[in-house]
Amino acid sequence: MSDHQILLASRPKGMPDATNFSVEVVTLPELQAGDVLIEPTYFSVDPYMRGRMNEGKSYIAPFEVGQPLVGGAVARVVESLTDGIAAGDLVTGSLPWATRAVVPGKSLKKIDASLAPASYYLGILGMPGLTAYFGLLDIGNPQPGETVVVSGAAGAVGIIVGQIAKIKGARVVGIAGSDDKIALLKDGFGFDAVVNYKTAGDLSAAIAKACPNGVDVYFDNVGGDVSDAVIKHLNFHARIPLCGQIALYNTTDVPMGPRIQPMLLTRSVLMKGFTIGNYQARFGEGIKQLAAWVGEGKLRYTETTIKGFDKLPEALLGLFSGQNTGKMIVEV
Amino acid sequence: MSDHQILLASRPKGMPDATNFSVEVVTLPELQAGDVLIEPTYFSVDPYMRGRMNEGKSYIAPFEVGQPLVGGAVARVVESLTDGIAAGDLVTGSLPWATRAVVPGKSLKKIDASLAPASYYLGILGMPGLTAYFGLLDIGNPQPGETVVVSGAAGAVGIIVGQIAKIKGARVVGIAGSDDKIALLKDGFGFDAVVNYKTAGDLSAAIAKACPNGVDVYFDNVGGDVSDAVIKHLNFHARIPLCGQIALYNTTDVPMGPRIQPMLLTRSVLMKGFTIGNYQARFGEGIKQLAAWVGEGKLRYTETTIKGFDKLPEALLGLFSGQNTGKMIVEV
Repeated sequence: MSDHQILLASRPKGMPDATNFSVEVVTLPELQAGDVLIEPTYFSVDPYMRGRMNEGKSYIAPFEVGQPLVGGAVARVVESLTDGIAAGDLVTGSLPWATRAVVPGKSLKKIDASLAPASYYLGILGMPGLTAYFGLLDIGNPQPGETVVVSGAAGAVGIIVGQIAKIKGARVVGIAGSDDKIALLKDGFGFDAVVNYKTAGDLSAAIAKACPNGVDVYFDNVGGDVSDAVIKHLNFHARIPLCGQIALYNTTDVPMGPRIQPMLLTRSVLMKGFTIGNYQARFGEGIKQLAAWVGEGKLRYTETTIKGFDKLPEALLGLFSGQNTGKMIVEV
Repeated sequence: MSDHQILLASRPKGMPDATNFSVEVVTLPELQAGDVLIEPTYFSVDPYMRGRMNEGKSYIAPFEVGQPLVGGAVARVVESLTDGIAAGDLVTGSLPWATRAVVPGKSLKKIDASLAPASYYLGILGMPGLTAYFGLLDIGNPQPGETVVVSGAAGAVGIIVGQIAKIKGARVVGIAGSDDKIALLKDGFGFDAVVNYKTAGDLSAAIAKACPNGVDVYFDNVGGDVSDAVIKHLNFHARIPLCGQIALYNTTDVPMGPRIQPMLLTRSVLMKGFTIGNYQARFGEGIKQLAAWVGEGKLRYTETTIKGFDKLPEALLGLFSGQNTGKMIVEV
């Protein structure tokens, strides 16, 4: 059996194309103690991977030229020299773009495919789903009748945040940047109102109009001017889970903005940064609840699936021309 | 028996003097249902009262010209038409500068003078003590061996915050603005290190030096540049109780500064604004614990006492020429 890897052949200038990738036949090493031989069945392709194709410092290390790309994947275990992982198990992890690979067992996490389709562990039951679940419920703690605002609302995390907030009985207001996304969020995912930050003009006024009772929870995926506008409308005892800050990703200088502490002080507001790693011990609880809501039809989730290992580059490139609705998955 | 009030005779320009006050003989009204006749025994004079002598919008309403000044006081109940308050009780409240007064019973809180001297309810067992207690313990939650930084460290709240943090086994670093204050905090109140923000030069470097293990709790009494410098040195999972923001008091524009959300996000930091009113239901617990620590000699508290009702203006003016060490009290 011959195994294949897809390598980063060269770093793209601007939009990447097929010439930035190459396929290589590899011979797998012998398994050492602790190793696992895996065969990926589903790969996730995500916008952040474009950044890893560049050289230079970012919030995540770049891919190496001449080495396989790496991304979230579900795999079947072929052979294992790790306690607790056995042939036939399904696992997730950050895995090389390869038809089979030998990886350390400790980098893998077993999944339960009886709860939901295995590919869901790359989205709604994976990092985006768990980030939404713990950030919203543990920090935001929305109550029935409260108003929850989520920025980056049409993103993988935001779209789940809004739906969970609806399940909890809150009024949900999204902030997104295109009319298509706004229609999708309102008509497809039950958001009560959505503000287009690109066309709103006076964004603060648009948020005030969309939130006549003020803002009780602000799930912040973006930071910057959008957040400045939301923070003006916080209610007493509001909560702000800090999930993403676009300003982080592209700058080394500290950006300036209006000071938020006076507002947080006078309204007794809680703001808390988090990463999903903080909740590792509770992933099981989150996956079980998210899977139950999916099963009950309370949580909608959409995937675009492309078939074939060799389609991975094409699927990744497709993200940038809008070929996906919801999560983009490659089925091997 | 003739009763006296001290009125605001005129608004001061710059530093107030004796001509801004006048004494008036008053005839007390009949008690109505719900009223209490009180005789103040101790008055608190505080720097914030200077601001109330000005006209114009601030974070607290101005005193009225021709009306008595009002401030924190302990009083003995002479007669009561309020359920739960009886003649002979000791109470605290925001009371007029008067030898006796008729006030609504619901504006008063009974105190227990067996726990500590009655005047302590204007300081360590009053707003400053409770603010330090709940802000530090409920939001900051310092652990043994952690580093707690407090700004405005020599203020009524800061000096208590530092001592409670020491009781909890933390390393305590104060930030203050004079060498006298720094000597007092280190030699008199057991602070491990104190940074003079006025003379430090590179404040961020000075904080780094004073906090070799980073900052786990930052009790923020001041905001602005001082806080910017501390926030650079936060540890993962740090906590920031927001207690005061000087920027609030003198400006109507929103001040600009470096955005803090990226730092809070990447370090999973909690920031929470609070006012002491949030903890009203737990005041009893706080007073009991603070009184116990005072009794055990773990919590030091100093007062400067001036005797005589007619000395109230002089005592207030004395605050601005540094005539007090610790809390300034007028004993009637």
